[in-house]
Amino acid sequence: MTKGGAPYGLIENGALALQNGRIAWVGPADALPSAWQELPQEALGGRLVTPGLIDCHTHLVYGGDRAREFEMRLEGASYEEVAKAGGGILSTMEATRVASEEELVAAALPRLDALIAEGVTTVEIKSGYGLNIADEMKMLAAARRLGKARAVHVETTYLGAHALPPEYKGQADAYIDEVVLPGLEQAAEAGLVDAVDGFCEKIAFSTAQIERVFRKARELNLPLKLHAEQLSNQGGTALAASYGALSADHLEYLDDAGVKAMAEAGSVAVLLPGAFYTLRETQLPPMDLLRQAGVPLALATDCNPGSSPLFSPLLVMNMACTLFRMTPEEALAGLTREAARALGLSDDMGTLELGRRADIAIWEVEEPASLAYRIGFNPLYKRISGEQA
Amino acid sequence: MTKGGAPYGLIENGALALQNGRIAWVGPADALPSAWQELPQEALGGRLVTPGLIDCHTHLVYGGDRAREFEMRLEGASYEEVAKAGGGILSTMEATRVASEEELVAAALPRLDALIAEGVTTVEIKSGYGLNIADEMKMLAAARRLGKARAVHVETTYLGAHALPPEYKGQADAYIDEVVLPGLEQAAEAGLVDAVDGFCEKIAFSTAQIERVFRKARELNLPLKLHAEQLSNQGGTALAASYGALSADHLEYLDDAGVKAMAEAGSVAVLLPGAFYTLRETQLPPMDLLRQAGVPLALATDCNPGSSPLFSPLLVMNMACTLFRMTPEEALAGLTREAARALGLSDDMGTLELGRRADIAIWEVEEPASLAYRIGFNPLYKRISGEQA
Ligand SMILES: [Zn+2]
Ligand SMILES: [Zn+2]
Repeated sequence: MTKGGAPYGLIENGALALQNGRIAWVGPADALPSAWQELPQEALGGRLVTPGLIDCHTHLVYGGDRAREFEMRLEGASYEEVAKAGGGILSTMEATRVASEEELVAAALPRLDALIAEGVTTVEIKSGYGLNIADEMKMLAAARRLGKARAVHVETTYLGAHALPPEYKGQADAYIDEVVLPGLEQAAEAGLVDAVDGFCEKIAFSTAQIERVFRKARELNLPLKLHAEQLSNQGGTALAASYGALSADHLEYLDDAGVKAMAEAGSVAVLLPGAFYTLRETQLPPMDLLRQAGVPLALATDCNPGSSPLFSPLLVMNMACTLFRMTPEEALAGLTREAARALGLSDDMGTLELGRRADIAIWEVEEPASLAYRIGFNPLYKRISGEQA
Repeated sequence: MTKGGAPYGLIENGALALQNGRIAWVGPADALPSAWQELPQEALGGRLVTPGLIDCHTHLVYGGDRAREFEMRLEGASYEEVAKAGGGILSTMEATRVASEEELVAAALPRLDALIAEGVTTVEIKSGYGLNIADEMKMLAAARRLGKARAVHVETTYLGAHALPPEYKGQADAYIDEVVLPGLEQAAEAGLVDAVDGFCEKIAFSTAQIERVFRKARELNLPLKLHAEQLSNQGGTALAASYGALSADHLEYLDDAGVKAMAEAGSVAVLLPGAFYTLRETQLPPMDLLRQAGVPLALATDCNPGSSPLFSPLLVMNMACTLFRMTPEEALAGLTREAARALGLSDDMGTLELGRRADIAIWEVEEPASLAYRIGFNPLYKRISGEQA
C-alpha cells in the first residue's frame, strides 16, 4: 500500500522479514538479503499479503442490543412507540450504564473477534454511551481491556459529547461543563484516552459546544476527530479542521468550503458506508471534491448498535465501491494506509514498509480487487499481529 | 416457522427428537414423550433453533471470476472497454466452457462452504453459463457432485435460456431449437434436472421464446421457475403463472396484473436483494401488492459472479429488511418455509414439523430478529443436515 509504484503498491513474488513485531525487510523475494534467508521461513504460495486492516471508527463497546427496535420499526411502529418501548440511543445508554466493565468486555469480545477474523489488527473504540463520568470511564477501561484480551492494537477515543443524557434535557451547555470536560480530564489522567471526538449535528451538539471540547483536548495535548455533516451541513468539519483534527467522519453533507478546510489542515475523511446503507441515505459524500482536493479517504465499520450494526470490514470495502463508487484500491487503502493516518499512526502501521509494525493479513485471493468484489465472503488465510511480539 | 401461532412459530423451551434424518417429535420440552427421553440428548442452552436455511436461487457453479471487471468499471472503464477486456456474462461463459467438471466443483466448494457456514442445508444451483449442450450438462453434473461432496441437499435447475452465446448472435430462436430444448431433454434423461428456468428480459429471451421452453418442460413433467421483471416489465411472470410455475424471481418491475396471476397460480415470489443492491436499482418490488395478494415471499442470495457475488444468506436477510422493508420474521420465512415452497419441497423441509427433514440451524442469539439485524456477523452455533443420515 505504499504510494507511487504499481497499483496497490504491489510487489509480485515479494518477501517480508519480521523481527520483534516489526517489519525488518520487504521487497522482491529474489533480493532478500542472505542474512534473512537463514531465519525460519514460511512460504505463502502466491497468496496476497496486505497490511492488517485498521478499523478507525467503531463504537464496539456497548450494553444491550437493538435487534427488537430494528424489528419494531420494520413492523411499522412509530418513533413514539419505539421510544416508549425503550428504543434509540438512550436505550443503549441505559444498558451500558447498568453493565459492569467485565460485562461490557464480554459482550464486545464476539464483535472484536468478528473483526479479527477478517484481518483487523488495529481497532479504534469510542466511549459515548455512558454519558456520565463514571460510565464513560468504564467504557474506556473496557476498551483498553479488549486490547489485552486479544492480539490486537486498540486505540481509545473519548466521545462524551455523543448525545445528551435525559438528566440534562434542555441543558446541553451544563452537560458539557459538568460531564464532558471534567470527564475528559479524569479519563486522560487515568491514561484511558488516545483521542477526543464529538457529534456535531442538530440532534446532538453545536459547533460552539464542540469547540469547548476541542479546547480542552488541546490543553491536554490530545488529537481530535469529529462526527460531522452526517445528516446536515453544520460546519463542524471546518471547525475540526481549524483545530487540526486527525479526521472528520461521515461527511455526506460536506460542502466545498469544508473540503478545502480539510485539505489545508491535512485531515482525513473517514467515510462510513454502513451507516449510509442502514439509514438508507441518498446524499453521497462529495467524493469528487474530496479526491480533487487530495483529502485522504479512510473507511471504517462505524460498528454500533443503532445506525451500523456491522462487523465486516470486507463488506465495508464492497459498500464503499458499490455505494460510494470508490475503487477497490481506494477501498483497501481506506482500511489500511489512510485509516492509520486517521488515527495519527501513519509511522507505525498501514503500509508494509521497513520499521512498521508486523500487522499483516494474508488472503486466499488471486488479485486484490477480490477483497472488495465479493460480498459476505471471507478469504483470510492468516493474520499476524505485531501486538503478539 | 409454522404459521398461525406465536411470532416465528416460536416454541419457548422447546425440544426436538430426530430419527433417521427426520424430525420425529417437536414441541415444548416438558411435553416430550418418555420414549424420546431415553435417547441421547443434547442441551442447547436456550439457543434459537430454526429450520436449516434454504438458498433457493443460486448460480453457484461457474468458471472464472469478475473481480477485475468490477474494478475496471469503478475505475471508469466504458462498457466497450470492459467487453473488449473480456467482461460480462460471456466471460463467465468462456471460463465455464474451458473448465473441467472437476475444476467447476473445486471452484464452487468454497462458495458452498460459505453458505453452509451460515446454516444452509439446501441450495438450488442453476446451469446457464455453458450455453451449449455439453457444457450445460457439465454444470449440472458439477452441481450434483457438490451435493455429494458436502452434507447439503442440492436441487438442480436447467437454465439453458439464460443468455445468447455469440455463435447464435441474432438467432435466438435457433438457439432455443438447437440448444435449449434438446439440451433440456438430454439433461433430464441423464437425471440432472430438478426444475427448469429461463431469463425473460429485453437483453435475454422473449415470452414467446420462454414459452417454448416451458412447453418442453411440461412434456418432461418438470417444474418451472422464471427470472422475470427484473429490469423491465415483459409479462414473463404472468406467463410463468399460467404454466403453474413454482416461482418467479427478481420482480422489481412486476405490475398488479402479474401479482394477481402469481396469487392465482400459487407461485412464490423469490426476491433477490443482493442483485438489487449490486446493480444499485431504485425500483423496489411491489411489496405491498404481493403481501395483499398473499403471494409467498422467498429470499435467496442469487449468488453469481456478475450481479450478485454474494455468499451470505444472513446478509440477504438484512438487505431484505433494510432495502425491501421486510420484517425479520418475513426474512427468516423467506429463507426457510417460503424458499422450500419455491423449490416445491414444502412437505420435506422449511419448517420444524413432524416428518420434515432434520435440517436444522442453531444460533447463538437472544431473539430471532438478531439474525436479520446484524450485518456481517455469523452467530451460527451448530448446523444439522438430514442429508448426513
Ligand atoms: Zn460513529
Ligand atoms: Zn439468477
